[in-house]
Order: sequence, then C-alpha cells, then structure tokens
Amino acid sequence: MVGGGPGAFIGAVHHRAATLDGMATLVAGAFSSNAAKSREQGAAYGLAPERSYASFDEMAQREAALPENERIDFVSIVTPNHLHFPVAKAFIERGFHVVCDKPLTTTLEDAEELCRLVKAHDVVFALTHPYTAYPMVRQARAQVQDGALGTVRKVIVEYSQGWLSTPLEQTGNKQADWRTDPARAGAGAIGDIGTHAEHLARFITGLEMEQLLADVRSFVPGRRIDDDANMLVRYKGGAKGVLFCSQISVGEENRLAIRVYGTTASLEWHQEDPNFLTVRHPDGPTETWKPGHAFLSAAAQRGTRLPAGHPEGLHEAFANIYSNAMRVMHARQAGETPDPLDLDFPTVRDGAAGVHFIQAALRSGREGDWVDASYVAPGA
Amino acid sequence: MVGGGPGAFIGAVHHRAATLDGMATLVAGAFSSNAAKSREQGAAYGLAPERSYASFDEMAQREAALPENERIDFVSIVTPNHLHFPVAKAFIERGFHVVCDKPLTTTLEDAEELCRLVKAHDVVFALTHPYTAYPMVRQARAQVQDGALGTVRKVIVEYSQGWLSTPLEQTGNKQADWRTDPARAGAGAIGDIGTHAEHLARFITGLEMEQLLADVRSFVPGRRIDDDANMLVRYKGGAKGVLFCSQISVGEENRLAIRVYGTTASLEWHQEDPNFLTVRHPDGPTETWKPGHAFLSAAAQRGTRLPAGHPEGLHEAFANIYSNAMRVMHARQAGETPDPLDLDFPTVRDGAAGVHFIQAALRSGREGDWVDASYVAPGA
Amino acid sequence: MVGGGPGAFIGAVHHRAATLDGMATLVAGAFSSNAAKSREQGAAYGLAPERSYASFDEMAQREAALPENERIDFVSIVTPNHLHFPVAKAFIERGFHVVCDKPLTTTLEDAEELCRLVKAHDVVFALTHPYTAYPMVRQARAQVQDGALGTVRKVIVEYSQGWLSTPLEQTGNKQADWRTDPARAGAGAIGDIGTHAEHLARFITGLEMEQLLADVRSFVPGRRIDDDANMLVRYKGGAKGVLFCSQISVGEENRLAIRVYGTTASLEWHQEDPNFLTVRHPDGPTETWKPGHAFLSAAAQRGTRLPAGHPEGLHEAFANIYSNAMRVMHARQAGETPDPLDLDFPTVRDGAAGVHFIQAALRSGREGDWVDASYVAPGA
Amino acid sequence: MVGGGPGAFIGAVHHRAATLDGMATLVAGAFSSNAAKSREQGAAYGLAPERSYASFDEMAQREAALPENERIDFVSIVTPNHLHFPVAKAFIERGFHVVCDKPLTTTLEDAEELCRLVKAHDVVFALTHPYTAYPMVRQARAQVQDGALGTVRKVIVEYSQGWLSTPLEQTGNKQADWRTDPARAGAGAIGDIGTHAEHLARFITGLEMEQLLADVRSFVPGRRIDDDANMLVRYKGGAKGVLFCSQISVGEENRLAIRVYGTTASLEWHQEDPNFLTVRHPDGPTETWKPGHAFLSAAAQRGTRLPAGHPEGLHEAFANIYSNAMRVMHARQAGETPDPLDLDFPTVRDGAAGVHFIQAALRSGREGDWVDASYVAPGA
Repeated sequence: MVGGGPGAFIGAVHHRAATLDGMATLVAGAFSSNAAKSREQGAAYGLAPERSYASFDEMAQREAALPENERIDFVSIVTPNHLHFPVAKAFIERGFHVVCDKPLTTTLEDAEELCRLVKAHDVVFALTHPYTAYPMVRQARAQVQDGALGTVRKVIVEYSQGWLSTPLEQTGNKQADWRTDPARAGAGAIGDIGTHAEHLARFITGLEMEQLLADVRSFVPGRRIDDDANMLVRYKGGAKGVLFCSQISVGEENRLAIRVYGTTASLEWHQEDPNFLTVRHPDGPTETWKPGHAFLSAAAQRGTRLPAGHPEGLHEAFANIYSNAMRVMHARQAGETPDPLDLDFPTVRDGAAGVHFIQAALRSGREGDWVDASYVAPGA
Repeated sequence: MVGGGPGAFIGAVHHRAATLDGMATLVAGAFSSNAAKSREQGAAYGLAPERSYASFDEMAQREAALPENERIDFVSIVTPNHLHFPVAKAFIERGFHVVCDKPLTTTLEDAEELCRLVKAHDVVFALTHPYTAYPMVRQARAQVQDGALGTVRKVIVEYSQGWLSTPLEQTGNKQADWRTDPARAGAGAIGDIGTHAEHLARFITGLEMEQLLADVRSFVPGRRIDDDANMLVRYKGGAKGVLFCSQISVGEENRLAIRVYGTTASLEWHQEDPNFLTVRHPDGPTETWKPGHAFLSAAAQRGTRLPAGHPEGLHEAFANIYSNAMRVMHARQAGETPDPLDLDFPTVRDGAAGVHFIQAALRSGREGDWVDASYVAPGA
Repeated sequence: MVGGGPGAFIGAVHHRAATLDGMATLVAGAFSSNAAKSREQGAAYGLAPERSYASFDEMAQREAALPENERIDFVSIVTPNHLHFPVAKAFIERGFHVVCDKPLTTTLEDAEELCRLVKAHDVVFALTHPYTAYPMVRQARAQVQDGALGTVRKVIVEYSQGWLSTPLEQTGNKQADWRTDPARAGAGAIGDIGTHAEHLARFITGLEMEQLLADVRSFVPGRRIDDDANMLVRYKGGAKGVLFCSQISVGEENRLAIRVYGTTASLEWHQEDPNFLTVRHPDGPTETWKPGHAFLSAAAQRGTRLPAGHPEGLHEAFANIYSNAMRVMHARQAGETPDPLDLDFPTVRDGAAGVHFIQAALRSGREGDWVDASYVAPGA
Repeated sequence: MVGGGPGAFIGAVHHRAATLDGMATLVAGAFSSNAAKSREQGAAYGLAPERSYASFDEMAQREAALPENERIDFVSIVTPNHLHFPVAKAFIERGFHVVCDKPLTTTLEDAEELCRLVKAHDVVFALTHPYTAYPMVRQARAQVQDGALGTVRKVIVEYSQGWLSTPLEQTGNKQADWRTDPARAGAGAIGDIGTHAEHLARFITGLEMEQLLADVRSFVPGRRIDDDANMLVRYKGGAKGVLFCSQISVGEENRLAIRVYGTTASLEWHQEDPNFLTVRHPDGPTETWKPGHAFLSAAAQRGTRLPAGHPEGLHEAFANIYSNAMRVMHARQAGETPDPLDLDFPTVRDGAAGVHFIQAALRSGREGDWVDASYVAPGA
C-alpha cells in the first residue's frame, strides 16, 4: 500500500476490502512521506519494519529487488490524487499490478500515459470506483444489456454531499484540506465525486457522452476549488442526461443516485440504500430487486456473500473490485484465461475517461457553453 | 364552469375541489363548443337546462344580464390552454371573478393583458397550481421563510411523467391529442408540467430566476411538441438550480419533486407521497414532517381537514385554492379585508411568470444557449 | 344526518364523502341533542331551519311524514356509539336506508336486532369502515381471491395510535371524552380501532376467526376503558393471526396496517401511505401496486377518480362507500338489480360480526384465556 | 474455529467478521467431523495441515498442549446447535476464550452448566447475536437508557422469514436439513430466529419477561419442528409485548424488526435497512437517525467504520462483537480493566436467557396457556 498513513480513512477501507475474502495480506507499505509515520502505520498493520518504506520510490525499488516469491503481488495506491500518477508509474514500470483510487490522475496527459504503460507492461490495473461493484448496480447493468428497458432515452445521475457546506478546510480537517487544494486534488466536487457519477452512468447504460454543459461554482467563501456543479449531457445516439454533484448540499451524506429511462421501462438506484433496485414499468407494478437470489444476473450473484435479507455494504462492494482483480492476477500468473466475470472492474482506461470528463466539465464551466465530451482512451 | 365536457377529467376535479368544503354549487356552464354536449354535461351536473350554454361568450353575456343574486359568483376555466385567454377576458371584463387552469395563456402578450384586466376590473383571479396548496408544501415554504434553511443555495426540481412515452396522440386519446397539439397547448412538457415545477420552486423558495439554459427535445417520432426538457437555472442572488420535466420518463406516474438546499439545512418533498416533508440537518437526525399537527405553520394547518395520519390528497390541495379564493371573494363582497391566510393562492401574475418561463425555456432550447429568465409581471 | 354537531370532526368527513361524487345533498339533520346547537349546525350546512331537528326521533317522524319526493333518501348516523342502535332502529323501521359509523352498536343483542330489522324492512345499510374502501385494499382482496397468494397461512394486522397516551379525557377534549367513556363508547381501543383491524383482515382474506386470545390493558392511570390490546387469532382452516390495537402507541398517528402471508406470495398495506400495495414473491422481485391503472381489479379501478400518480386519500375511500351504497339505493328505487361492484361496502352483518369480535376480545382479556371467536350474524 | 466446513455459510461469515478489523488470524480449526473435509477446509483457509483437526476434542487437547504463544487465543464455535455445548465445554475447561453462535445450547441444563463453567474458568464468552451490534440498535438502546422514550409500555418485535415455506429439508438443502431436525437444532423458528428477536427486545429495552403465551405451529406438511410462532408477552413492571417469528412468511427474506413505545416517544428499527432508526414524537417531526455522526452515543459510534452515508451491513455488526470480545481478551491478558465500551457483546448468560425463552415458548405452545417466563441465569 502506498498512502493510507495515520488519519487517512480510505487506507483502512482499502485494507479491509483487500482482505475481506481472505485472498490477500498486507506485507509492505509506504504509508506516509514522513518515515516515522510510515513505520508507525506499518507497525499498526503488523508489518515487518523493513517493509515500511519512507517513500514510494524506495518501496518500488526494494520490492522489485526481492525474490519473486517474497515481493508484493500488487500495490494499492491510496494517496491524494496528484500522487496517483508517479506512484502508479513507478510500480507499473517494474511490472507490478496496481489497484488505484480514483480519480486516476490530475491531468489527461498523465492518465493517457498510464494507459500506455499498463498496455506496454501488461499489468492488471483496477481503479476503485466501488459503487459500480454493488450487486444491484451490476444487476441494473444486466437489465439494460438484456434490453429490459428498451433503448435508453434519459439518464439522471447525481452525487450530493453536504460535508463541505462550510469552510471545513480552514479548520485543520485533513480530508477537507487536500480535497479542496487544487494542487493536490486537481478538481473539487467534480473530481472527487462527479467522476463517480459519470462512471456509474456509463457503467449501467454503456452510453458515451457526446457533449456536456456544466454550471460550476464554489459556494463557500474562500474555497479555491469547485464545490458544486450542474450539468446537461447529450449522449451519442440521442439520449439526454442530467448530472449534478455537490459538496454543499447540506444534510446529504453520500447521495449517489441514478435513474435510467428507456423506451419500455426505467430503473432507479440509491447508494445509501444499496440493496434495493427499483424497476418501473408502464403497464405493471413497480419492482424492487434485492441481492441474494438465484434469479439475478451472474455478476450480481458473484458480488454477494450473504443470503437474501442480510445487508452488505460498501466494504463488500469495494472488496468485489479487489477480489475480481486478484483473481485476474492469479489467472495471469497461472497462464490461464481469466473468467469473464472476474474482468468486471474499472480499468485504467475508465480512469482516463473519468479524467477527460472532469476536464471537459471544468472547461465548460469556465466557458459557459457546450463542450465536446466524446473520448476514446488509448491502450485498447 | 367553462370547459370540462364529457371525457375531460380535469373538469370533474375542479368540480369536486370547488364543492369539497361546501362553499360552492355549480349552477351554470359552457362545457363544450358543441351545444348538445354542453347540455348533456350540464344535465349530468343537475343544472337547469337554460344555464348550460353553447359557448363561453353566450354564458358570459347571459350570466352578466341576470340579477346580481342569481348570476354566478365566479367562473372556473378548464378548457385547453389556447382558450384560457378569451374566456378569462370575457368574464373579467364583465366583473366576474375567475379560477383558471394553468398555464395561464399560450402567449406572453395574452398573459400580460390578463394581468392588466384583472387589475383594471379588480376581480379575484386564482390560477390552479394545486401542488403548491398541499399542506406540506406550505410548510416547506414556511421553513424557508422562517430561515430554518439559512440562505438557499441550490434547488433541484422535476416533474417526470411517462404517459407520453409512446405516440399516444395517434391513438385517439383525447388528453394526448390536445396536449401535444402546438396550436391548442402552446407548449408540450414544459407548458403542461414544467410550469408546475417552476411554480413549486418559486413558491417554496421565493427565488426569482435570472438565467436558464434548456435542452429541449421531442423523443417520440412524429410528435410536434417538446416531450422532455432538462434545464440549468441561475437565480438572482447566486443560487443555482436544476429543473427537468418529461413526459417520456417511462414508468413514472406523476413525479413532481423538489429539493432545496440552504446554508444550514435542506428539505425534500414528493408529490406522489405528499403528506411527508423531509428536512435534513448536518448535525442532527433527519426529520419527517406530516400534516395535522398544531406545531405546523398556520398556512399548513389551514390546508388540512383531517386529523394526523388520515391521508388527504390532490382533491384537497385543489380545494385549498378554491376555498381560499372564495373566502377572498366573500371578503371583497362584504367590503372586508381578506384574511392574509386566504390570499394564499396563485394569481394571474404567477400565471404570467409561468408563461414567461415557458417561453424562455423554449427559446433557450432553440438557441442552445443561456437566456435571460428574469421577469416582473405587470399589474402589481 | 344524525350527530355531527359543532366540534365533531367525523360529521364533516361524512358530509364531504357523501357529496364528493355529486350524488347527494344534505337536506335535513338532527345534529345535536341541544336544539339550538342542532339549528346552528344546520344553518352552517345551509339547511332550511325546519329541517334541523332537535332529536333523531323528531327527525325520523317528521321526515317519514313528508311526501316521498321531499323526504330524505337515507340517513347518516355519526353519533357516539351508544346511539347508533336507537337511531338506526328509528329510521330503518320507517323504511329509510342507513349509512352508519362503526362500531355498529355497543351490545351484540342490539347489533343482531339491527340485522333482523334491516332484513325485515329491506333497506340498504352501509357501515363506514372506510379503510377497506381504499383502492389498494380492494386490490389486495382481489389478489387473495384470485389465488395469487395461494392459501393464506398468517395474518398480521394492527391499528396503532398514540393520541390517548396521556389522560386527554381529563382535559376537556370532546373526542377523548366520549371515546373513553364506557357508557357511550362501549369499548375503548378495541371498539374504536381494533374493529377496523378485524374488518380489514376479514375483508382482504375472507377468513373467519375461530378462537382468539387477547391481552387487554388500560395503560393510562384513571382511564376507565381499554387503551391497548394484543391478540392471537386462530382462523378456521388453520391460518394464524396476530392482531393488535393501541391508543397509547405514542408517536403513531393512524397506523392501520396489514400483512397477509399465503403459501406462494404475501402482501402488505399501510393506511398512512394508502396508494401503495406491496406484494412479495419467493422467486422474483417485490412488487408495488398503485392505483389508476387498467391492469388492476375492477373494484380497485372503480374506487379511483384521478389518473395514476395523483394521490387520493381517506375522503375518497369514505366516498367509495357512500357512492356504492347510493347506487344500490338508486337501483332498488328503480327496481333494478344492483351492479355487483356497487354491493362492495360493509353491511349491517359485518357490523354485527365486529361487535361480536369486540365482545369476544374483552371477554378473553378478562378471562386471560382463549375464547370462541366464531360467529355468524343473523339476517343473511 | 470449530464447524464451518465446506458448504456452511455461517463459518465464512464468522471468519470475515473475526478478521475485518485486522485483529485476528485463523490458525487452527476442526471444520468437520470428517477428517478429510476438515483438512480441505483448513487448506482453503491457508492453515498449516497439522492444525486442521479431525474433531473438536483433538483440537482442544492439542492446542492446549502447545506453548502459550503458539496456541490459539480463542475458539469460534459455528457448529449446529447440539454441538455448542460439548465444544464450548471442552475449550472453556482448558481455559480458552470462546465466541459461540446462537442459540447457546439445546437444553437449559447445558446452558446453565456453561454459565458456571465460564465463571469458574474466568474466560471471555461472546455469543453472536450480531443484530444487536448494529450501530443503530446500540443507538436505540442508548435512547431508551437516556430516558428519551420515558417508560417503556409496549414492544412489538418480530423475525419473519419465508425460506422454509416449502419442505426444503426434503430436497437435500443442508441448511434446511439440520435446522429442521429436532435432534440437531433443538427448536425450529423459535430457536433459530425467535431467540434473536427476544434478545433484540431485551437488549434495547432492558425489560425482563414475566409471562408469555405462545401459539406455535408447523405449517409445512411433514415438518418435525416449529416453523411459526406468535406470542404475547408480559414484562416485569407492566409493559406488554408481541413477539412473532416465522420461517413460512413467504416473500420475507430476513425481516427482524422492532418497535418500542414509551410514555413520551417511540422508536422503530428494521434489520433489512439497518442504518436507519426511526424515532417518533407526539409533538414534533419524526426523526431518522443514521450512523457516522458525532452526535450519536459512544457505543453507536464505536460500531461504525465509515463516514456517514457509506453503508455498513451485517459483516460489520458481526465484527463488532468479535472486536469487542477480542479487546476484552487483550485487556485480560494485559491485566487491565476492559474499557466498558468493549464489554458490549452478548454473554453466556444472555445465551442461557435465550434458551430459557425458547423452552418457555415451546412449553406454552404445548399447553396453550400463559407460562412463567422470568429467569435469572447463574454465573453472575
């Protein structure tokens, strides 16, 4: 693990997710650029002292120098956004597989460079958009793919939070500090959570954006980065969309939600109640789909560990990405073709698409006009 | 009543609403431009045959010629949109009070002319935006006015229906027929339901639009009018908004819903579950407010007839407009100052604002750019 | 109308319900045993002074003496419970149809006497259990009758309120006063609301009780009547049930709710959200049924006036009973066979069954043991 | 771990729960009475072959013979119910701490013997009633303890499932097989899930049962054990209760739910939506409490790992029991007084109370009458 030092909540989440299914053990880390803090965190995880590194560079070099059966199998990158690129590059170039937090990078150039590196070094790269790994999101995708909605006409997707309604970054809050710093975060609400919304819509519908128009704002006095954005979207093929994200929607905790309207049916899903998928029909009762049933899609079933009615949450969704990625790593190592169900995790190319979206939205916000949002990442 | 002939559902709704509180009796009408149909409908309502008129003009003239204590007290206009103007004009000019369905008119010129006529003839004019007469919508407004939300920053409002997902107007459906005819409806989804959304947002927040940008579309092949629109809104003072309306959101019945985010709290309300108002706070539990309690605002209490837990619906909201308007008519007749709580209904000037909104949205849709949405109706 | 004087909320509800569909006009009443108050209320309803009577006896006699085309067509009885019997008797014996509030009477003897009188005088008698006239309750019954649930095994039904959590009857509250007075109410929570729960379960499932065991209590110090009861039920044929009712379930407004479990599916309905019926299947998504659709049962469709998504509430359910009963009265008058869909309202025999249930529950509560709950009302 | 061989879902749940917070590693097990299967399961967990034992007896003996720093710290018992007693006894007598699945035993004698053994050997014993370790259940308890509800008057608690609506045990389903076998399960629905409901009510309210009356049934033909039970409860001090449990409530997945009515407020919680706690007041809006906030009780906060709005589920609740128990074990080992917040897990004495409840309910069902339900477990 790189990042995830004392006080960083996302590191602990990655750790739980990586180990939930008993498929991984944390053995090395560069948890902080402060060597003492890195050792402290390593000790908390029970690591051997010599494998708590003072920098990601040191870690990449030393781990690569270990015998193959002793070195790490993959690295989890859980740093602030601006470090994703150099860390990922350092490990990819040494042949390590990568699991990386989103957004992929703070510039599109970096993102595309990673796409090329992943292809060149033939490593597995998983990006943690955990929300699309919930069973009911996978089920939603299956219903769209199966044609249960007809042709998609309209998408409403949002990610509303309220935690930055006040200038929290001026109070010493560590999360707020880096997430509102243009240098470390790259973008504000759009980069932190808007990109999850964009990925969710793309994951479920398969639609590609063609144009978008964003109204972007920083509501909180003194804030140097966007904390709210409302967007109109035109998808290829004629579907329309609304996408909005906010960190000043006071009272909201983590309202990521989507609605997809097709020609014959529609669906709705809310992250805060993730085990319920609503499907509406014009000529029959509304349906609520829940996990744990044999009548669900194979991908939804694979992401479920407990019988119906026993709630799973975000840790398990996160773990679904890790476990799939690790099974693909195993297959690669064994020289086998991965199970297609295991290939179900966001990739470096999804990450580049996300960075392109962030930048298009920011540009539209500056220009106050429609911008081209179409994009094809390199490295296919 | 003018309009509301056989097969027109909204006429029956107006009738129930007008009579629910025992304050009015239907005594005359021009229910159809077909004299026989008008008489037929009048007979169904138990009217004297001589008071079922063949045209609104005849009705206006003849009723005005009756002795004061025999003639109608006010007229309800429930025709297709393009007739609202001439009918209203005919009755206002003869000094009758008016209750009129929305949207007020199909052109802004007509709307403004009505504003001036209402002022000149000093009549009561109520526009039936019934959704803002639900007790919990009035409660929402009270909470904004009382400062419970702080300063409003963001508004999300929508009106999503799915009933026009297919070319229903080509099947002989009477409602679909005139509502998708540019000549009779003036506008499609924006005019039929978008205007309710606009009014709901304005009613609760008191915010005035400054600019809007609309992405307008007709999804159904052969349709001559908009059936879907997504809009970004900039309010005076800096608040932002998203407004979308649709008649092709398949599976949705009548999803009018709003969220208002302030600096210190937010609220949410859904028309399909109208007796629940959600209020969210950053530092305490989420609240659900319901009607029938003494701790609610006076306006919310006035709009409730049953004890808590006994659901009221749209008929009662509709009746709240009628009953308030009739109490104001009574006060006027009695030469008294109306109770301020009775003045709580949408006026002709709200109607003009609604028509301005419709036209601004259509223009933005055509131009693909931001348009000026600010407006002050005449007749203040 | 008999009863419904100043301050009695249920009288106004009956009035709105009776007139909602434009099928009735209130023309006479004995609103209070105080002649002045009765006249006052009559004037408020716009009645001719000579038809505001000082007693129900006077009203029954005088109305019966009027020419057939001038007298009332039927009487609504909205008095406290102990007067239902003498009032109903007085009108039935003079050949008037009756709409009566529940519970039917305060003794089983009286209830059975009414059954016999109704049969002997061949009048229409409707008992206002309005909750079973909601469209979604009728739909629930249709699903049971159609076999969609298989054989019913288990019923959970409750009616929980909190308004009598404190000794409200000692504060001068008129409703609390008579409803907690054994002489006027007959029974407390069981008679006031438990009987609605019993009727709801019987209406939907068609099951007859065989035995019941009730744990009955008065929680509020000084209260002279039951304010809480929990019951186990054994139905004929082997199904089991739980029925509980309470007026001390603080925080609850009017939580009448039912669940029915069959061998192949189950359903759930909540009165406070009456337009949603949940149906659960073991091998498919959960369904939510809503009113206003052509795919619903004929009885559910008949009880709906507005398009899907436009909420109706208790007034309309109440009106469904009135309108059906009035259509049956019309058919009788016209010498026609009533439409079977119009016969869909609770009868005097349902009322007797309710009284039997109340008494069985009170007896079980006193004895602390199972009692026989089977019953067949006379007058079939 | 003892039990949890191939195909046993609850073993995997215990494993994830025990390791979620990085505080434990599985090092030994007797996963099956079949030595090969036990080794197979041990290998799947990555155990050293010599620590996959063929029987719990062998495991207890051999582990006890290992040096203190090599042997297991505690044992998790996840066998069918009838083995809980001998396994627990074997390990307790050798001084091992125990985490044991519920119900504690199949006889009260065994349960009480375990209470005495735990006391005599001074070991930590945690019983996995995971549902009471959800943050919002802990919050509910805090609100009762803080007096926010006044004095509790009424409790409605249920555990409804539908998975045994058909004779699943005759189809080879392993779970259904042992859970409907009187010899291995001891009791059916009452033992498997009714005991969770009983514990939930006791945990939140602190009330002790005085008397209960149960109507117990096996609905499915050929079933040898109860699959449905409805109970009335009288608590010490005068509160009343309804408790029902069922495995034939078709369509229900895992509906454990509770309502508690006090004199001044009430609360409601549903396991299938565990992150929402509803609190109702007579004179203010209804509240929904959610995890992750600093205004919650210390116990609720301790049981939460993610920020507000990021759902946690049953694995985390389960882990809350493990982590608390392990912290207490650590404190004991270190000779320190445990943090009172760590002592928050169900104990062997809770288990004995649960077994007493099961037996009282079965006896009442047989006798058809009220039975004494009061109980004080030994070993205090």
